[in-house]
Amino acid sequence: MQVGADNIEASRVNGTRVYNTDGDNLGHIYDVVIGKRDGRVKYAIMSFGGFLGIGEDYHPIPWDVLKYDERQGGYVVGITIDQLKNAPRYASDTSPDWVDPAYGKRIDDYYGVSY
Amino acid sequence: MQVGADNIEASRVNGTRVYNTDGDNLGHIYDVVIGKRDGRVKYAIMSFGGFLGIGEDYHPIPWDVLKYDERQGGYVVGITIDQLKNAPRYASDTSPDWVDPAYGKRIDDYYGVSY
Repeated sequence: MQVGADNIEASRVNGTRVYNTDGDNLGHIYDVVIGKRDGRVKYAIMSFGGFLGIGEDYHPIPWDVLKYDERQGGYVVGITIDQLKNAPRYASDTSPDWVDPAYGKRIDDYYGVSY
Repeated sequence: MQVGADNIEASRVNGTRVYNTDGDNLGHIYDVVIGKRDGRVKYAIMSFGGFLGIGEDYHPIPWDVLKYDERQGGYVVGITIDQLKNAPRYASDTSPDWVDPAYGKRIDDYYGVSY
C-alpha cells in the first residue's frame, strides 16, 4: 500500500490552503466527504472566504480535481475563477442533501469527472 | 459514482460509534487517515475510552476492517478484544510517524490486510 508522507489525518487536511494554477491563494479546505462503504474521498469542501465576493459559501469539488503540491504545501485546483463563480455551492449555515444522487451528479458533471 | 446516503463529511464520521460483532459498544471513531494523492481512506483511528483498561489510547485500524451497519448507525469491527489488546496503538497525546512506511505496514500486517 501507499504509506508515508502521503497519508494524513482527515482533520489535518481541513484548513489546508488551496491555490489556483497561477499560485493565488483561493481559500482552504473546510472538510472532505467520504464514502462510508467504499472508503473513497469523494469531495473536498472548499471555503473561499470572500475571495469571490460571495461570503462564506462552501464549494464541494471532486477530489480528483485537486492536486497536492508538496512545494506549496497545499492543493492546486486547475479550474478558473469563472468556473468557480458558477459552480455548485451552498451557504455555510446550510448542508447539502448528500442523500440526493442528483446533487452528486450535478457536481461531477460540472467539473467533468465521473466515478 | 456512488452518491446518496453512502456519503458523509469526514468530520461527521468522527464520533461515530464502533461495535464488535456481539453488539458491544467499544468506543468511537476519533479521526480517519486518508491518502492525500490517491484519495483513499486508509485507516480509522479508534478511541476505546478505557474499555480495554488502557486509557485514551488510539488504535489505527485498516478501513477495510470496518463495516458500516445502517441499523446500529455505527461501524462494526470483526476483531476480538484479544486482537485489540495487542494491536498497534498510541497514546492520545502523541502522534504516530505516518511518514514511516514500516508503521503502516505493521498495522496492515496485524489485521491481515494489504492494499
